[in-house]
Amino acid sequence: MASFGEIGEREIIRRMLRAVRPSGRDGPGDDAALADISGRLAICSDGLTFKRHKPDTMTFEQFGWTAAAVNFSDLASMGARPNGLVISLMVPADTDEESIYDIMSGADQCAEFCGTFIIGGDTKEGEGAAVATAIGSMEDRVPMTRYGAGPGDLVAITGPLGGPAAGWHSLKHGLDIEEAEIALKVPVPRVDEGIALSGSGAVTSCIDLSDGLAEAAWSICGSSRVGMEFHRDFLPEGEGVAEVSELLGMPRDEMTLYWGGEYELMFTFKKDKIKALYGCGAPFTIIGVVDNGNSPKISDADKTEVLGHGIY
Amino acid sequence: MASFGEIGEREIIRRMLRAVRPSGRDGPGDDAALADISGRLAICSDGLTFKRHKPDTMTFEQFGWTAAAVNFSDLASMGARPNGLVISLMVPADTDEESIYDIMSGADQCAEFCGTFIIGGDTKEGEGAAVATAIGSMEDRVPMTRYGAGPGDLVAITGPLGGPAAGWHSLKHGLDIEEAEIALKVPVPRVDEGIALSGSGAVTSCIDLSDGLAEAAWSICGSSRVGMEFHRDFLPEGEGVAEVSELLGMPRDEMTLYWGGEYELMFTFKKDKIKALYGCGAPFTIIGVVDNGNSPKISDADKTEVLGHGIY
Repeated sequence: MASFGEIGEREIIRRMLRAVRPSGRDGPGDDAALADISGRLAICSDGLTFKRHKPDTMTFEQFGWTAAAVNFSDLASMGARPNGLVISLMVPADTDEESIYDIMSGADQCAEFCGTFIIGGDTKEGEGAAVATAIGSMEDRVPMTRYGAGPGDLVAITGPLGGPAAGWHSLKHGLDIEEAEIALKVPVPRVDEGIALSGSGAVTSCIDLSDGLAEAAWSICGSSRVGMEFHRDFLPEGEGVAEVSELLGMPRDEMTLYWGGEYELMFTFKKDKIKALYGCGAPFTIIGVVDNGNSPKISDADKTEVLGHGIY
Repeated sequence: MASFGEIGEREIIRRMLRAVRPSGRDGPGDDAALADISGRLAICSDGLTFKRHKPDTMTFEQFGWTAAAVNFSDLASMGARPNGLVISLMVPADTDEESIYDIMSGADQCAEFCGTFIIGGDTKEGEGAAVATAIGSMEDRVPMTRYGAGPGDLVAITGPLGGPAAGWHSLKHGLDIEEAEIALKVPVPRVDEGIALSGSGAVTSCIDLSDGLAEAAWSICGSSRVGMEFHRDFLPEGEGVAEVSELLGMPRDEMTLYWGGEYELMFTFKKDKIKALYGCGAPFTIIGVVDNGNSPKISDADKTEVLGHGIY
């Protein structure tokens, strides 16, 4: 198997694009790729490095999937429909061709899952890293931002919390909680949910949970100049959270509130539009309410506390 | 001056976007940026590393400019009008804030030169690298590709060759040929020229010279299944080429044919549409002709040779 250094930068990306899309499409081989956008364009770019984002137990394919997923998740939080993925790799010269193929294949599988494909890319020699850029169309929908939450709105999420955190602990301690480990290694961007939510007309702000629920809440509170109160009992727990908490004595809040790599969407919506929201087809759980304050809080039967900052 | 590691990933990109665009625009702070595209979207992404692409004599600002310029040049070769730039940085934790600002500022100056601005970005810890993604609108123009050259077409370029190569030698040997050194460190993407050329209706293929004239010609020949013959006497020489050749005994071909980091456009056009080409406003020099062969050749009074591969 030839290494990247032997094949060369200009050749490898052509091979990869041919390999993941054997039928051939517009673009590969030209200086830029082309795409047809409907309505406003949404675009985001996020880089992951082998060193920080690829634990030994993660395959190159899962790394590629994740590099794509973090970006499709960002598109999802705006309510955009994905139109394409461009991926720039930087890999050491001795990286074998199969590893590069696996990264591209993983990214392409995620793109396909999100209804699109890899439209272009670039490979350079460097420390191992993948920077993916996802583009999407707003079509006739208004983009969801972090700025529109108002007091009295309700706060909801599209799925359970803490699964990826539980997966991380499961891997580290050999607990073998498969569902949780998959939630960690193959994050699912909530693309269909984002499109449905933005189309409902009910949502006033939205963000993904890639930095955890607490950071997401701080961000919405800061951008919309509001406060927010969650009820601990309302927070749906992901696979493995109870088990990890029981087996390792890990605090549940650490997994459900302060863990990154969570890819559900958190959003606020106008109470009087809840019917439109139920009709839009996206599953959700109401977890709190927006208030006149300036910080996110969490309450249970005993007390109410301001959420902390940071991610584990 | 705080370092990147002290400020943190989530904060630094906000500071940078505020700094380069103090008036504030759509997007910064949200998960994805928004842009309005007219016609088809053209998109490209290209990464540069400190190690390979930032010689000691290059400032961070020039590095940022270059990271943007290579992408705007790719858009230019398709004939797209730039609509935005997204930039993902990876920097060591001890990088000071000013250096990051300088990279962003350099990239933003290049974007402004190309009629647009930075619409989003991301900063992660890693080996020094910048991956910029440029987007552009085809408006009502047909994208120029590498696939349309036909026998009998003429070959032209938008400007002189070898300036950046001469600049590199000038820097290395302290020759102080200022114009050439600027051509190396502050490459100018031919955005207006690309738009004018694609609007002329005369162009049958186009590519930028970022890998040098020889590689560009091989690429057009391969993609369009044609040959090409250049006349050595027709090749316009950039600033400093004659001087470097004379002072250092450097072969001119090495600088004009086989040097990367050249940002002129090479294109082919239908002879009978030359009037439309002259009318489009882009300056150009005719340097050769497309033929029925399968390789690019160069001829002078004495002989005709097939061009080599590779970049210095």
